[in-house]
Parts: sequence; structure tokens; C-alpha cells
Amino acid sequence: MNKESLQSFLHTSIPLTQSMGVEIVTLTPEEVTLLAPLHANRNHKQTAFGGSLHAVTTLTCWCLLKSMIQDESYELVISHSDVNYVRPVTSDILATAKPPPKEKWSRFEKTLKMKQKGKINLEAVILQDGEVAVRFQGTFAAIKPSLSIV
Amino acid sequence: MNKESLQSFLHTSIPLTQSMGVEIVTLTPEEVTLLAPLHANRNHKQTAFGGSLHAVTTLTCWCLLKSMIQDESYELVISHSDVNYVRPVTSDILATAKPPPKEKWSRFEKTLKMKQKGKINLEAVILQDGEVAVRFQGTFAAIKPSLSIV
Repeated sequence: MNKESLQSFLHTSIPLTQSMGVEIVTLTPEEVTLLAPLHANRNHKQTAFGGSLHAVTTLTCWCLLKSMIQDESYELVISHSDVNYVRPVTSDILATAKPPPKEKWSRFEKTLKMKQKGKINLEAVILQDGEVAVRFQGTFAAIKPSLSIV
Repeated sequence: MNKESLQSFLHTSIPLTQSMGVEIVTLTPEEVTLLAPLHANRNHKQTAFGGSLHAVTTLTCWCLLKSMIQDESYELVISHSDVNYVRPVTSDILATAKPPPKEKWSRFEKTLKMKQKGKINLEAVILQDGEVAVRFQGTFAAIKPSLSIV
């Protein structure tokens, strides 16, 4: 899937991403970046709502995983998240995720080949004025739809 | 704030809660429950979007804290979250939070009185068919607006 078709997939199948105004800015093997405007995601303090910060970082990692797994038949779901909200986000939300280390990815791919299911930890950050504002760590499960439990 | 005014506050100041269709079902000293319909919060698998599950549990704990702190001048923000997505949520999202143990709350209140700021851990769960589907743990900071760093 290219950037446009993945964004269209998100907006169609996860309608909240439309309300959030989520846009895929970058989708390359080196980096995935998603944008969500502050206005649609503001809270009572006119900073970004924690729920939106979590949702955008989750989607960024999900898009990264979707783009890295060649076999499109895998279902990708989040199983755990750990997020530090270090400082308020006072501008548009820009979340970035980079691929995990090569050896970690190779192990994950081997597990998928053997078991048709596997889990991998991914990270995303949101910067504010050049400093980390949100640090997201998520565990994502990939599974063939024919298997019911990861 | 009663249930109606707190819900109105959420919808006005965090517009995404309107898109999510968030409703406050219960707001008592014993329990806070928030509802969000599946349809507005669905993902590509027609189950609840992880971002929505996190947002609803965050809001549930935030509402609990808002209702427990008598002094309305405190700002309440999330500083950390840890969430386990145990099983898919296939119906409307119903998140419940209960007050922390009394001694923990007393310590938190004493800290607020002394320092005008403090942090507390709160938990929320989402059930699916009587079993835990999502287990949320969040650290929330309360701070008087005159103090800049928690």
C-alpha cells in the first residue's frame, strides 16, 4: 500500500481518524510520520488531548508495521501500550516511528514464518519544539485470520 | 459538577469526545462509568479501535479525579499510561473506574494541601461479556495553574 491508499484505508475503516484529521506525511522504509491538527484534537487547556496523542502514536506504529509486513493477509492489533506524556503538545501533533533494529525484525519475521503469528515492540515519539513530548511504546501482534489466539 | 455539566464540559472543551459519542453513565463517589458506541469507534475489524479504548478509559479516570477533587481550580493532566488490550471489544465501550484505596487518596490529598500539586495512579477497566477486555492504569497529575512544573 502506498501513502494515499493507506490513508484512505484508515479514514474509511477507522472513522475516528477522519474526525482527528489524521494524515500520513511520510511512509518510507526508514520512517513513518503521521500528522493530526491541534484544533481537532484539543483539550480544555488548548493543548493536545492525551487520547489523541495515544491514538496518533498507535496509528503511526500500526502504519509502520503494515508497511513492513509484505503479506497483507496478516491482521495487526495492539496488545499493550506504555506512554509517557512528558510535556504538553501545543501545536499540531506530528508522530514519528522508525523500524526496530534489524536483528529484532529478523527474529519477528522468522516467528511469523514458523507460527503465522508473532508479537513485536515498536516505538513512536511526538516532538514539541525539538524535545520529546510523548514517548510511546507498543506491543503489536500480527496474526493470520485463520488463527484465533495470539 | 454533576453528570450533565461534566459531560457538557467534555463535549465542549475536548471536541473529539463528541465524535466518539462519549456519554457519562454513572458519576458517583463509588464509581464512574463512561459509554462510547462501537459504531463511532470501530476499526477495520469492526471491533473497537485501540485509540478509542485508551481515550475512553483515560476520560473515565479523569472524570473520577475531577469529581473527587473538591477544589475545581486544580488542572488535571495525564502523565503516564499503561494499557493491556486483553481481548477485542465487540460491543459498545463501557469503561469503569473506582476510587483508589482510602489511605492512598488521603496521602494524595495531604500532598496537594502541602505542595498544591501531586500525582496519583488510577485504574479503569472495560469488560466484554463479563471478562476484562482492557485494563488501563494511568498516572494523573493535579496542579494549581500558578505552578508551572509538576
